[in-house]
Order: sequence, then structure tokens, then C-alpha cells
Amino acid sequence: METRNPTLGPIGQLPDALAVGLTTLLGDRFTQNRAIREQHGSDESSYPCMPPDAVAWPESTDEASRIMRLCAKYATPVIPFGAGSSVEGHVLALHGGVCLDMSRMNKVLSIDTQDLSCRVQAGVTRETLNSALAGTGYFFSVDPGADASLGGMVATGASGTNTVRYGTMRENLLSLTVVLANGEVIRTAQRARKSSAGYNLTQLFAGSEGTLGLITEVVVKVHPHPEAVAAAVVNFPDVRSAVNAVIVCLQVGVPLARAELLDALSIQAINAHSHTELAEQPTLFLEFCGSKVQVAEQATTVKDILAEHGGHGFQWADRPEERRRLWTPRHHAYFACLQLRPGSRAVSTDACVPLSRLADCVAQTLDDIQASGLMAPLFGHVGDGNFHCVLLVDTANAEEVASAEALAHRIAQRAIVMEGTCTGEHGVGMHKISYLQEEHGPEGAELMRRIKQALDPLNLLNPGKVVALPSGASRCKPSEAL
Amino acid sequence: METRNPTLGPIGQLPDALAVGLTTLLGDRFTQNRAIREQHGSDESSYPCMPPDAVAWPESTDEASRIMRLCAKYATPVIPFGAGSSVEGHVLALHGGVCLDMSRMNKVLSIDTQDLSCRVQAGVTRETLNSALAGTGYFFSVDPGADASLGGMVATGASGTNTVRYGTMRENLLSLTVVLANGEVIRTAQRARKSSAGYNLTQLFAGSEGTLGLITEVVVKVHPHPEAVAAAVVNFPDVRSAVNAVIVCLQVGVPLARAELLDALSIQAINAHSHTELAEQPTLFLEFCGSKVQVAEQATTVKDILAEHGGHGFQWADRPEERRRLWTPRHHAYFACLQLRPGSRAVSTDACVPLSRLADCVAQTLDDIQASGLMAPLFGHVGDGNFHCVLLVDTANAEEVASAEALAHRIAQRAIVMEGTCTGEHGVGMHKISYLQEEHGPEGAELMRRIKQALDPLNLLNPGKVVALPSGASRCKPSEAL
Repeated sequence: METRNPTLGPIGQLPDALAVGLTTLLGDRFTQNRAIREQHGSDESSYPCMPPDAVAWPESTDEASRIMRLCAKYATPVIPFGAGSSVEGHVLALHGGVCLDMSRMNKVLSIDTQDLSCRVQAGVTRETLNSALAGTGYFFSVDPGADASLGGMVATGASGTNTVRYGTMRENLLSLTVVLANGEVIRTAQRARKSSAGYNLTQLFAGSEGTLGLITEVVVKVHPHPEAVAAAVVNFPDVRSAVNAVIVCLQVGVPLARAELLDALSIQAINAHSHTELAEQPTLFLEFCGSKVQVAEQATTVKDILAEHGGHGFQWADRPEERRRLWTPRHHAYFACLQLRPGSRAVSTDACVPLSRLADCVAQTLDDIQASGLMAPLFGHVGDGNFHCVLLVDTANAEEVASAEALAHRIAQRAIVMEGTCTGEHGVGMHKISYLQEEHGPEGAELMRRIKQALDPLNLLNPGKVVALPSGASRCKPSEAL
Repeated sequence: METRNPTLGPIGQLPDALAVGLTTLLGDRFTQNRAIREQHGSDESSYPCMPPDAVAWPESTDEASRIMRLCAKYATPVIPFGAGSSVEGHVLALHGGVCLDMSRMNKVLSIDTQDLSCRVQAGVTRETLNSALAGTGYFFSVDPGADASLGGMVATGASGTNTVRYGTMRENLLSLTVVLANGEVIRTAQRARKSSAGYNLTQLFAGSEGTLGLITEVVVKVHPHPEAVAAAVVNFPDVRSAVNAVIVCLQVGVPLARAELLDALSIQAINAHSHTELAEQPTLFLEFCGSKVQVAEQATTVKDILAEHGGHGFQWADRPEERRRLWTPRHHAYFACLQLRPGSRAVSTDACVPLSRLADCVAQTLDDIQASGLMAPLFGHVGDGNFHCVLLVDTANAEEVASAEALAHRIAQRAIVMEGTCTGEHGVGMHKISYLQEEHGPEGAELMRRIKQALDPLNLLNPGKVVALPSGASRCKPSEAL
């Protein structure tokens, strides 16, 4: 992988004049402190820390623009940092540079209930936004699990458990404010709910992982709280039956709010972590929402479909505290899985395939995991065709790491062969660049490079992520772990 | 406007070698016949015909690619032509060149009900697709009124009456096959329902109006037919009450399937055209869908809300023939409006604003129309904040044309000032280029130009639409009406 090229040089240092300029601009909101740089050199992936040369905390779009102009003047990379919850090495400073920590851009700028939208600074996290929305009757729907920042969620094209009903981050976006590579500021759209006014700049920056511009403000849709919500947990004899049951629900038009599959090992992890006594079988966690009448009707329809597919042990909850009790284990699944093997690190996979291929893809992946001998619980967002495996590895064991990487590689390739994608919601980062060529063809990957070069000719914006530019395209020196 | 620059030269002729190459490739599916060129030189806009130099009918992506390669070799513009139903001059051959008539790319390639999607050639129209889906239990939702081609609908970012429930063309897209300016073919994505694998090429080409690539195949989502559908027609004392009633319905979470406002003049046009006896007042046409229970419940909720806002004369239909009777007049509204003034041409407007501004925007626009003395019925997709005025003009009356253009200009600017867009669903074409700078700022408009130049450096793809490139950026000679 390019980023591990042993010929890359030593840690890049910031030009003195740039450090002076940033200190003048930001005061103590700029630092080259080693410990703070280290904090900003890794995310939730298993990559070793690659810290930036400095960290800056802008508080406004204008400050972010000024920082960008200064960095552009000194041809220094800029890496945006949200909540650090990405899992593909998005924030690693592969070529050194300045990390833009967005955590002080944490203002909810306006809540416009008549427009079913709100405007926030990019550092606002989804939980903060939902707290701000409390009492308005509305909520922000995208829920990737972690309390990610909205800017980060835009940048990775995040989604999560209720995407099947409310859409991904992309479908919930109305407009972005973006600082371009030269420091110019654009708003990608105004606030209308739809627009045909030229190229879709909003969707170009969504999923661009900080490589085309710095997202500083976000206008998102909010949704009215449904009158009623209910939850169900159901066991299945095998993953194939569980997947097919969900597909039939979607085919008959049941508006499932969430539809999560957990394999037997994930349930085992949850039982150990949450002290529950769930049957250690493939299990669906479902959620329904709407009016009381609608929810009751959905429950009847779905119960029949699940039973026809071998679903059993049906548990149902419609009172809030009962729902929470039923669903909380699912929300903790990722951390429960990590604790299956204390001290291990996780390599996450993110296959997403057409629904018709999902049962095959999951079943083949489980066989593959078993053959590998690795411990790798599997769970996913069945309604979207997306699932994750958490490959638990002892990073000191080179053979095991290699085995996990080979398994992750097969999972990504299987998804691509099945007309799906190597990443449904985590993004490319530094980890999946090599798959883009396979997934989009050489012409598609080349087109992405052309777009990157048009928008960021000096390759200053989060270099080394999403697209691999020929070395020498940037003057940026690489950084290494401290 | 650049495109009417009187200094532009005479009709460009195709280079002989290109004509020979295209004839060899396509046989009688290539022509320079004058009458056929004229048929391809105009759309539903009021612009005078500007025919291409030749017309070609590809039958496959491969043929479209070969045509593009030949045209690129001879630096000749290529203008894609779907159903010719666009309203912003999208298909006019401003700089001459070859028109690619996509009507023979009319195959439905696969219907994948388990994936809730299907794959079609770009020339398939929405009615053809829905005929092909008959009996499957699924339908394609996007309905802009005209029987547009799917490629054209992608290219303009089309939407229509049921966008409030099912989304615009953008939200119903999974993947595109696109011929690039150099003839290379890309698939923008595979078929997964979501993806974070690199830049969103699908959404970059959606709404690009043929200026970034030629769309040859489209993978769209399909939806299961709802169990029950019901329709309602309700009169209001004024447009403001009608708009606010719809907003409240959305705020409380009623999943309206369609929500159309027609002003009194539109109703007058309908009565004359369809021999109906609707009250000539601001009127909402609503549609509900879901299970029978859900539809009944929605009806009760909505009826109360409408009444609170002064809605009266509530008509309701849930049997198919009754529903059709109630809604058919709405579907014919555009043509009914045209017939208000036989012999006139229509200048259409396409303002779309945040919902909170819609009542003001519509009310101010109606005042503006009245003050102008023009005949201009108004109707729109209230749930999206989008409405159209059909400005009926006698094109031989220069003063009236100028008055209509001035009114259309004020409508577009009012929408922009209200944080909306000059075009919610019709696209930019040659007509709205000048507004992009205002709507997206100079930096946003410049970014669009940079994207165009990166993807189409010779400015061969539908030149003169969406972005205004400095003259001399292309060798292409302009065409004029025959």
C-alpha cells in the first residue's frame, strides 16, 4: 500500500512562517504539542497512530477558510477531524500537515421546524443535535452507532440502523458550507427540499472524506417523531431465513424502521457483555414506527412473514422502557464483540450487496470465517443489504493479522463480484482505495482522480485518502508514527 | 444571453470524414436530413428551433461510445435527446453538432423484484417502464407529467407530483452507465442500495443535463404498489391557507403521496378543458396511500387539518375509477393552461423554496402576476415547496414577451432571495445559467465550470447548457435556426 511505502521520508515539519501565522490567527487554539498531535493521529481503525504536525481548532467557517488559505500558501496538507469515530484510517496524517479539529464548531445554528430542517456547524454530534431538538417534536434520523459529528457523517456518507426507513446521510442533506482548497467558501445549495440548479455539489462533497473540501456547516432534514414505536426480537434457524424474511417484508411494502441481523456469535458476545439470555442463534432486531394503528398492523403482517421463514421466540415491546430493554443489547453489539477477545483490535468489513444476493453473501462469509479460524462476529443492516464482520486480531501476531486481512479482502471482493460495494457506509479512507478500481473500473477510478485534481490541484486536502494520486503530485512530505 | 449573441456565426457543418464515419457505423440510423434535424432542434420551451447538424440513433452503449469517439476526434458537439419534453431549451443545438436521439435505446434490461430495482436503457420512457412492470406488483414512482425518457429525467434531476412521498429522480437512482467525453464508458456504481465507495459519480451525472457525459443506462428503484390509494380535492379561500394546511400535514408526519396546489385560474383552465365544474378557487389535490387502515386514518387526520385551515367542499374517492375521475383534471392541468389562450406559447417558471417561505412566495407571485397583466396560471408541488407559473405569451408581441421574461426573472430571483432555487425540477438548460452565480455564489458557479472543464475539456457535451464557458473554450461553431 502506497501509504506504507518504506521509502517515504521522515515526519514533515510545519514551515515556521505557517506556525506563526496560525498562532497569530488562533492563539491557544493552535498547537504542535506532541501528546495532542498523537490524540489526533488515529481513529477507531486498527492502524497505528500517524499524527499530524499540528492541530488547530477553528470556531467558524471564516477561521477554517483562513487556516486553509495559510496552509495552501505553504503547500501544507489539512486533515479534518470530527469525532475520531471513523474506521478506515480517515484521520491519519499520512503526509503530515495540520489537523482541523472541528469540535469547537459545535453550534446548532437554527432549527426550522416548518422547513423540517436544521442548520448546524459541522462539529455538532448527532446526540447533541437530538438533544437540541428535544421538545420540538422532531429528530435527526441518521444513527451510525457512534456519536459521530455531522461533518464526519457527511464526509463518509454514513448511515446506520434506521436507514431502511429514513435514508442515509446523503438523503438527509439539504446543503453544505464548504471551504475549498484555495480557501474560498461555497454553499453547495440553498435550503429548498429539491433543486435542479446545476451540478449536485452537495452530493459531490458528501462522501468525499475531506479530500475535496472542508465541510464547515450542514443543513439536514429532521423528521417528526412517530406517534408509536414498537420493537421485536426474533430467532431464526439460519441467517438465510432471517435475510429472506426481511426482504419479503420490504417487498410487501412494510415500512420497517430498523431491521438488524446478528449472527449467533454476536448474540453470544451480547449475552456476555450485557448479561442477557438471548438464544444464541441468528437473530433479527426489528423496529416499527407510525401511528398506533399502523404499528399494530405492521406487527401482524411481519409476524406472519417471520413465522413463514422459521422465525421463533418472538419478543415484542411497545412501551418505551421495554423497547429500550429489548434493543439496548443491539446498540452495544460492536463493543460487546470487541470484548469477546480482550486486548484484540478490530478489523471491520462493510460489504453491501443487492438484496437478492445478501443471503448468499452472508452465508458464504460465515463459511469463510469458520474456515479462517478467526473470531469474527457478523451483524448488519439487512434492509440495506449491508453487513459488518468484526475481525478480532492480536496485532502482535503477524500471521493472524495477515489471515484477517486476507479474509477482509475476500469479503470486499465477494461484495464487488455480487454487484455490490466494498463499503456501504464506512467509506474508503486509506484502506479501500485499491478496491475502487475494481468496483468502478479503471475509467471510473480515473474519473475520481480527475475530479480530485480539478478541485485540489496541490493535493492538500486529506491526501492519501479515497484516491491514489501518482507520487510527486504533491510536495507534501509523509509523516510516520511518532 | 450568450446563446443569442448576434455575432455568432452561421450553421456549423459536420466534417465530411465524420459524416462518413457515422454513416459507416450506423447506416440509416444517421441522417443530415433537414426535416429530421428540425424535429430535434426544439423542446417544450418557447425558444425558436436550433437544429443540430445531424441526428444519430444509437442502439447500445457501445454505439454511443463509438459515436462519441468519432465526434471527439472531429471536435464536434454531441447533444443527447430523450423525449424532447424538457422546458429549458436543453436540446437546442446552440453550437451545432450531432444530436443523439436515444429513442432506440428502449429496452428494459432487467426487472429485479427482490432488489426492488430495475435496469433500463436510457431511452425507455416512464410509461413504458411502468407497462413493463405491470403484473409484478411494483411501479416506478417518478412522474414529471410528460412521458419523459428515464435518461432525460436523470439528466434534468426531474421530479413531479409524488416526490413528497417517493423522492425525486435523484433518490430513486442506484447506478448509471455513462459515456464520457472521450468515449470511455463508466458505470457510476454497482447495484447496492447504498455505497460510500468514493465520490458520488451517480449524483454528479444526475442533473448534469448532458454536459458531463451521455447517460446510456439507468438502474432505478421500484416500489411495491400500496394496498390502498385514495384521493381528495379541497377548496380554500386563499393559497396561503392551502399551503399552510399541507405543511401541517407534513409536520405531523402524514405520509402524503401527492399534494398539489392549483390556483383559481388553473381551475378555470381545467373546467374549460376537461368540462368539469370545480369551484374556481385555490384547490388542493391530495393523494394518500398505504394499507386500507392507514389510508382511512390519514384521511381522518388530514380532513381535520384542512378544515382548520378553511378547507371546504371536500371531495373524496377511494375506488380506482372515482380516483381517476377526481385526479385526471390535475394531470391535464398544463395542457389545459396552454389552451386558456390558444396560439400562445408558454414560459414556465420553476421556483422552489423552503416550506416556511412557500405561502409568502406563492402569494407575492400571484400579486406580481396580477400587476403584470399577463395570463399566468400557477400550480405546484406544495409538499416540496415547488410551484410553476405558465406565462402565456404571444411570441409575436415583443412587449408582452419582455414583460413575461421580466416576470419570470422576478419569480426566479424571489425564490433565490427566499433561500430557494430558480429551478426545483426543470433544470438550467440555456435559460437559467445566469441565475447559478446568484444562487451558488461566484465561487460555486466557478466550481461547476471547473468540474465541466475537468470532465469535458473540449466542451463537446451539450455546450452552452448549465455552465457558461468563456467563448473560445471550444472550437464548436454555433448553429442558428434553419
